[in-house]
Amino acid sequence: MPALRLYDYSASANCYKARLLLAQLGLEYERVAVDIFAGDTLTDEYELLNPHRSTPVLQLRDGRALVESNAILWYLATGTPFLPDDPLAQAEVCRWLIYEQTDVMFNIGGLRFRLITGRWRPEHEEAQHRHAGALEALAVLDRHLAERAFLVGDRYSIADIAVFGYAHVADEAGLDTSGYPSFRAWLERVRAQPGFVDDLEPYPPNAAVLAGASVYG
Amino acid sequence: MPALRLYDYSASANCYKARLLLAQLGLEYERVAVDIFAGDTLTDEYELLNPHRSTPVLQLRDGRALVESNAILWYLATGTPFLPDDPLAQAEVCRWLIYEQTDVMFNIGGLRFRLITGRWRPEHEEAQHRHAGALEALAVLDRHLAERAFLVGDRYSIADIAVFGYAHVADEAGLDTSGYPSFRAWLERVRAQPGFVDDLEPYPPNAAVLAGASVYG
Repeated sequence: MPALRLYDYSASANCYKARLLLAQLGLEYERVAVDIFAGDTLTDEYELLNPHRSTPVLQLRDGRALVESNAILWYLATGTPFLPDDPLAQAEVCRWLIYEQTDVMFNIGGLRFRLITGRWRPEHEEAQHRHAGALEALAVLDRHLAERAFLVGDRYSIADIAVFGYAHVADEAGLDTSGYPSFRAWLERVRAQPGFVDDLEPYPPNAAVLAGASVYG
Repeated sequence: MPALRLYDYSASANCYKARLLLAQLGLEYERVAVDIFAGDTLTDEYELLNPHRSTPVLQLRDGRALVESNAILWYLATGTPFLPDDPLAQAEVCRWLIYEQTDVMFNIGGLRFRLITGRWRPEHEEAQHRHAGALEALAVLDRHLAERAFLVGDRYSIADIAVFGYAHVADEAGLDTSGYPSFRAWLERVRAQPGFVDDLEPYPPNAAVLAGASVYG
């Protein structure tokens, strides 16, 4: 076993978040490709690894596996400058890690995935609903970032990495971000961080989603 | 200012989670009632306090406010037995805090709220979808708890408090939990914890939801 193994789908922004932090920490890891469109997350073996059937999964040398992209960020960032020590700042990071999954990924990621893979057209009722939710999330981020360089404590942290994952591809979800200048300036500040990489690959167009597979990777 | 002030809606399980931990920690706090059905979360003043317009909000003596129920749990539990020290165990807690919001609250809480307040009937398409998602979450919890006393590290923690919030009222969402015995045994273990309280109040029947108000409290 390597020290770290990442079960990873290259077109999932949840997986990209883990790859970005691993790159910025300079950590070596073994990457195991998981193709959610080929049913790789639907096997009994994968369920044992991750009962949520999502990607990414981080496996440690002793075989223990950690699931939920943002929990993986938390583990890797512990004791590094990517996670502040102060209890209130840590709780603020926790706040954004949750908001990212409930509002940023759910709306922007959910919309992007279904538009790109042809499951929804923009006029679909739920697409309209998520479009509105995505704009609300962008407005929350824009207002928050109007007074701050980064999401928590004026320092780049895993809160920024988590939110950047899906927020930086908002245009691929058909969202116009030109009305959110503080948000856009923050995207550039994230891109300017040492060790930044963006290796998020495109979804295969019109990929068929298998029943039971997580749509987010 | 008191040391701690909780902006709180008595029928919100997100708020109940904070009240439960505060009771178990033996902490005094000032409770400020927020009525989401009366528009209390839609004022400009409330938006300044919490841009997400959700409840609960924890305000500290210096005026700083923390939002997201599970981030509040994290802050209050830091340095106490309710949050383990070990980095992997902390990341596991983070995992369940996120899963609680994306799957447990979203499906069970979302369904319960809309059925009780008459927004959906059980045969509504999205109600059926959430019903299936809720059963999947109960199955994940049941399998996980078949081999463990509590969600993380075999000790009661804020992971249990967070998931208990909406999971313990699954029956009010029309869910039959009799097929999940390990889940039900865990509910009883949580109820047997020192200082346990359950002061979650019922939603007002047929309450009208105001546009822009969070449906979860």
